[in-house]
Amino acid sequence: MLSDAALDTIFRAARTHNKWTAQPVSDATLRALYDLMRWGPTSANCCPARILFLRSAAAKERLAPALSANNLEKTMAAPVTAIVAYDLDFAEQLPKLFPHRPEAKSWFAEPTLGATTAFRNGSLQGGYFIIAARAIGLDAGPMSGFDNAKVDAEFFPGGRIKSNFICNLGHGDPAGVFPRNPRLAFDEACTIL
Amino acid sequence: MLSDAALDTIFRAARTHNKWTAQPVSDATLRALYDLMRWGPTSANCCPARILFLRSAAAKERLAPALSANNLEKTMAAPVTAIVAYDLDFAEQLPKLFPHRPEAKSWFAEPTLGATTAFRNGSLQGGYFIIAARAIGLDAGPMSGFDNAKVDAEFFPGGRIKSNFICNLGHGDPAGVFPRNPRLAFDEACTIL
Repeated sequence: MLSDAALDTIFRAARTHNKWTAQPVSDATLRALYDLMRWGPTSANCCPARILFLRSAAAKERLAPALSANNLEKTMAAPVTAIVAYDLDFAEQLPKLFPHRPEAKSWFAEPTLGATTAFRNGSLQGGYFIIAARAIGLDAGPMSGFDNAKVDAEFFPGGRIKSNFICNLGHGDPAGVFPRNPRLAFDEACTIL
Repeated sequence: MLSDAALDTIFRAARTHNKWTAQPVSDATLRALYDLMRWGPTSANCCPARILFLRSAAAKERLAPALSANNLEKTMAAPVTAIVAYDLDFAEQLPKLFPHRPEAKSWFAEPTLGATTAFRNGSLQGGYFIIAARAIGLDAGPMSGFDNAKVDAEFFPGGRIKSNFICNLGHGDPAGVFPRNPRLAFDEACTIL
């Protein structure tokens, strides 16, 4: 059981950030983030998430045309913007990732099952990504308000990698946090049978 | 920044469990799990995840015909099996969940965008669910090895709720844990631009 302070850090007091301090995010921090999130479980250990960390001004400028108006300024200002994506050909890695079942690669040959598996598990890993960022002391600002097709054409032209969501990373300025929205009560979202 | 022990609990030392002790999981524990996971961020606070906790023998028996052979015994033995699902009509809740933008409901009226948003964000919430379970001292055994269509016909016949994955919950017996599979290295999954 985690401490109350730790539960606050990753869930209860954590907020989506919109303003960022000038404190940079190092390579070592991005590696620490991935080194945590990668341990989260995926189906047949398929690990389809692929992450592009945009930190240079040149990389950010390639992203800008794909952003919705309300996400542009905060994303350009963030120390790092991650494109959380997934690999439709994730099964190529299964001989390494699931070595005790050499036939695992063939389980996902059907394209619809492959794409569904990549999206589901890539999104699960997106959840791990956000929590891992918070767990190591970063703030996160995830968003879906962008043009996936434009991002894919610019950053993943081969068609094999698909953007899922984007997530600003850095150290947030609490002044930019919006009032917290409510959540569904247990009985609105859950049933015990 | 979380302590090393906390990072171990939610990521580094956490394992998918396959054998369960007889220790039951109470209503209060299931409510504590939801009360954590619900704070994880979703797009426009859409919160599409819906969870059916199967704890009674009768409920478990309704699930059994949909399980793959290798998932049957461990799932019947688990104190609780959660069906993590999502609501295609999540937008109906937006006037409550995103009250400062009364028009938000209309953003998701296009069925493909609505279904994609539900699946992406319901899966993100699935990631929060697994981490929250571990954070409060439960062990988790998530799996995709079941027939989603059979589960939906049995538990969600209206067509509005779709099963995503299932997850056994309880207190795991370490004797049932498989050897850990490798993960992709940073440079195999990530790029810094």
